Amino acid sequence: MEKKKGSLLSYRSDIKVVDATIRDGGLVNDFRFPDGFVQSLYEANVKAGVDYMEFGYKASKDIFDEKDFGPWKFCDEDSIRNIVGDNDTDMKIAVMADVGRCDYKKDIISRSDSAIDLVRVATYINTIPAAIHMVEHCKNMGYETTINIMAISNAKESELDEALELIGQSPVDGIYLVDSYGSLYMEQIDELADKYLAMADKYDKFVGIHAHNNQQLAFANTITALVRGVSYLDATANGMGRGAGNCASEQLLGFLKNPKYNLIPILKFLENHIEPLKASGVEWGYNVPYLLTGQMNQHPRSAIAASKEGRTDFLNFLLELNDRD
Amino acid sequence: MEKKKGSLLSYRSDIKVVDATIRDGGLVNDFRFPDGFVQSLYEANVKAGVDYMEFGYKASKDIFDEKDFGPWKFCDEDSIRNIVGDNDTDMKIAVMADVGRCDYKKDIISRSDSAIDLVRVATYINTIPAAIHMVEHCKNMGYETTINIMAISNAKESELDEALELIGQSPVDGIYLVDSYGSLYMEQIDELADKYLAMADKYDKFVGIHAHNNQQLAFANTITALVRGVSYLDATANGMGRGAGNCASEQLLGFLKNPKYNLIPILKFLENHIEPLKASGVEWGYNVPYLLTGQMNQHPRSAIAASKEGRTDFLNFLLELNDRD
Repeated sequence: MEKKKGSLLSYRSDIKVVDATIRDGGLVNDFRFPDGFVQSLYEANVKAGVDYMEFGYKASKDIFDEKDFGPWKFCDEDSIRNIVGDNDTDMKIAVMADVGRCDYKKDIISRSDSAIDLVRVATYINTIPAAIHMVEHCKNMGYETTINIMAISNAKESELDEALELIGQSPVDGIYLVDSYGSLYMEQIDELADKYLAMADKYDKFVGIHAHNNQQLAFANTITALVRGVSYLDATANGMGRGAGNCASEQLLGFLKNPKYNLIPILKFLENHIEPLKASGVEWGYNVPYLLTGQMNQHPRSAIAASKEGRTDFLNFLLELNDRD
Repeated sequence: MEKKKGSLLSYRSDIKVVDATIRDGGLVNDFRFPDGFVQSLYEANVKAGVDYMEFGYKASKDIFDEKDFGPWKFCDEDSIRNIVGDNDTDMKIAVMADVGRCDYKKDIISRSDSAIDLVRVATYINTIPAAIHMVEHCKNMGYETTINIMAISNAKESELDEALELIGQSPVDGIYLVDSYGSLYMEQIDELADKYLAMADKYDKFVGIHAHNNQQLAFANTITALVRGVSYLDATANGMGRGAGNCASEQLLGFLKNPKYNLIPILKFLENHIEPLKASGVEWGYNVPYLLTGQMNQHPRSAIAASKEGRTDFLNFLLELNDRD
């Protein structure tokens, strides 16, 4: 028997869709979205049955200059309140907090005074203890929390096992399988999901997935993880996100069978907000340089630069990638 | 135990890569490729270790007017010979022959007089006996043969079982799993591959896969089938093919571990021939209308029309798709 949860015609009530458009998409445009974009996305997500909407980062203003970014780099309470009011909806509000880049003791206030429901702590594998400190603070403040371990495709298996055990013993609610470089294949997602889920079952936590589309596998890896038992699924409108982008909301919502999900508000949002954004010159999505960094399990920064320059000298680009080793 | 053949670091010597750029890509531009395109692709494929290159269709000149198409709609021996000479390479030459659209008794001559090695017979499930007649002719002429059953996502399981049994008893060498509408998910590929492979094992045949990228699952479905035991893998340069296109050669060759495969000639071909072709206005590849026809398991013709018109009124497009039922 294969491990498989659910079927193609039924649905699982544990599935949660997390819209990360503003947060991951903000990496494309320094979090400067056109007027009305975030408000319209919020309304579209509510209508679409999306479970969580991530507004951006809680970034330290000591580290990052407010002049260099739009408001969603910092996610001040007022910025979120301007969009969501009292958020009298079924959708919860999320933010991401990077280890080492967030003044969490100052900036993450009591949940009862906040518009935010979920804090997702992003960490590399070598800063797990710091991530757990942040989670402990956030839990004490009343939030739901996740730990998102980035760049695991370059982590040793033994380190990952140890990291998962540390996280298991922490008060975090969920842990994310993150394919930072878009380098993982579905076979690897199966194995990693099993590993994460084993820890999650042991410690009564959930597992999420955040995929990147470097090899056009973001949607494939997301539904692979879903079938395996992962329940929190990240997606972004039109896949908007750093570099090759993410699993697209329209792919995921068109696949899920729970009647609470509705593709139509997202299609309208694509028409009215994503198409104009792309026409204005904001770029993301699959291309050959992203494929190559994904295949080589490298950070996409060189492919982002190549894409900005419109490079099509793919062979030279590959040779440059090889030179870095 | 899960069914899995091979591993991510090793390779299987039964794997064959079939380049279908000219044949499926020809559906985009009526088989009119720029000077040097086909010759350069042939040379690139040889250097890349591609096992078969499909040049186009053997279409009936009684049915189709030669004036309306480039030469690869018909694949005259002279046309192929102009490119391949005696084809003194390890790569074999393939053509596709559609049931009902090919004067096979006249146009498919003895293999000993032909540049062609493999004839792939494309059929719908209701014309399997005609496909088998064509296969018998081609086998008698000395060719390798496959039967490619199209549009199986709309076929009944019992019909497919019967079709496979008929094909199993025929002299065909291989059978193709074809996702004509780009509607299949990996779970379905697993099940279909198992079904096809069971017949293939019983009758000593091989199984191939030809995927479409409507849901950005062409590469994912191809490697899913590969892991399951499918061995003939179709790909096209930059995914060039009807509508949303196919699994891209650069995705597949970058994934396969057999040292005989080499990505570099394909990257050069993309630089020197595909990029100029796209710049000249020839269009294919994933977009939201293709996603929607894929999700709804419909022929992509409406999405092809929408793409040509540059439509971004995705909601109206979806409503039109719904109206057709």
